[in-house]
Amino acid sequence: MSSPDWSLHPQLAHDTVPLGDLALSRVLAINDANYPWLVLVPRRPDVVEIIELDEPARAELMAEIARVCAALKAHTRCDKLNVAAIGNVVPQLHVHVVARRKDDTAWPRPVWGAAPARAYATTELSAFVAALRRALGLA
Amino acid sequence: MSSPDWSLHPQLAHDTVPLGDLALSRVLAINDANYPWLVLVPRRPDVVEIIELDEPARAELMAEIARVCAALKAHTRCDKLNVAAIGNVVPQLHVHVVARRKDDTAWPRPVWGAAPARAYATTELSAFVAALRRALGLA
Repeated sequence: MSSPDWSLHPQLAHDTVPLGDLALSRVLAINDANYPWLVLVPRRPDVVEIIELDEPARAELMAEIARVCAALKAHTRCDKLNVAAIGNVVPQLHVHVVARRKDDTAWPRPVWGAAPARAYATTELSAFVAALRRALGLA
Repeated sequence: MSSPDWSLHPQLAHDTVPLGDLALSRVLAINDANYPWLVLVPRRPDVVEIIELDEPARAELMAEIARVCAALKAHTRCDKLNVAAIGNVVPQLHVHVVARRKDDTAWPRPVWGAAPARAYATTELSAFVAALRRALGLA
């Protein structure tokens, strides 16, 4: 399901640490210790909107969203998952999956623009990435 | 795919006008003239997260999201679609599909919390709802 012509948008590369590749999407962890926050990026060139994916890829994207949601929920025991494809700033199609807690810095607001990103301590980020890699079978 | 035990959350009922029912979801229009904005609500009782839907319902939800995205894009010729399941305030699972323009009041920020809702003129809202009903085969 991948394409040789695809590459990760530089802004997404800058803000994240890669976990690995599912059948369709690259999975990234956002370096923001305010919230456990993963992003799925379908490895298809020039795709901006979900409706620009063909039907099998859209179905796979939903399956991968569910897989990432389940892994993040199990790891964090969060109060709510937030799932969103926005892309007003970075056009390359990417789907946010954010684990929210009722005591996090932005609750109940959405996370985008709510608070400046807070970088993880290196060991904290490594532990988060390692745990989610294992949970997603990407280790 | 519907359930007799399901009913629309009162807050969603208050903020919207119904367009009709697809196989899984009720389609609603948000009464906010700032943005053409539809919401899909799977008619399954007590479902809060996408991962609480069974696999066939998740696949149907993605198909219905794509159908609503395509209809909204064709009707509005928007610059970007924003698709999100957040639910921090209204827990009943609902998926926002918002048509964004680079000159809308919140661009490039997400719409949630960005600007107070601006009620449509009655005729404007009727025209929007009628057009999207036709586009979605709900007329």
